[in-house]
Amino acid sequence: MRLPCRRPLQLANIFPLARARKADNQRCTNGNHAIAGANVGTDEQLSRFRQSIDNIDAALIYMLAERFRITQAVGEFKAANALPAADPGREERQITRLRTLAAEANLDPEFSEKFLRFVIDEVIRHHERIKNEG
Amino acid sequence: MRLPCRRPLQLANIFPLARARKADNQRCTNGNHAIAGANVGTDEQLSRFRQSIDNIDAALIYMLAERFRITQAVGEFKAANALPAADPGREERQITRLRTLAAEANLDPEFSEKFLRFVIDEVIRHHERIKNEG
Repeated sequence: MRLPCRRPLQLANIFPLARARKADNQRCTNGNHAIAGANVGTDEQLSRFRQSIDNIDAALIYMLAERFRITQAVGEFKAANALPAADPGREERQITRLRTLAAEANLDPEFSEKFLRFVIDEVIRHHERIKNEG
Repeated sequence: MRLPCRRPLQLANIFPLARARKADNQRCTNGNHAIAGANVGTDEQLSRFRQSIDNIDAALIYMLAERFRITQAVGEFKAANALPAADPGREERQITRLRTLAAEANLDPEFSEKFLRFVIDEVIRHHERIKNEG
């Protein structure tokens, strides 16, 4: 009698890191099924990781789109109220805050600062484009 | 008798862009209150925009942290299963998908591609660091 493979995938379905750590335990040892199972398991596992990455990327894109909607409104608001376009103190406070949040989230604080500057550079490009078109 | 200023802020509390468009309607015209109100209104409005930006930035940082947790797990999984580290076809599919999502969200598709490359460059740096440390 050939027993079906029992795979401890419940937690692993929810937590990608848990899945990765369980990957070595997901080998079945009963004949042909073992080989096919190992191959399918690897492809399926990679596919699950990628599904999570794709979901997060979609969330990031929509969040960034909303952020640029707001910074565009800020640009228009500042222009309408004769407020200065730049505020170096604000940028410094943003960097300090994001570095703290990054450390809490176990993300490299250097990367969080690079990321904010990358986004702010794009905001400046947007504002310059609006100024040149206006 | 001095009437209090009536400000149409209900929708504006929820939608920053609606707030920006209503900014010109937020001037009161009854004496000293008008001047104080205009000043407070401008500072308060800018503060509200910034609160939204700060909330979105926190969400972005936590999303990015989770994304790097998964790509780190992918790196370890690929190494454990002797899978190739790079997959150029996958990257092309990601770019195509994100450009479509960006267009739907009214975000510059060029920026979405630059953003993905910025993130993938960091993933590669992480993997190289792990390889050098290992």
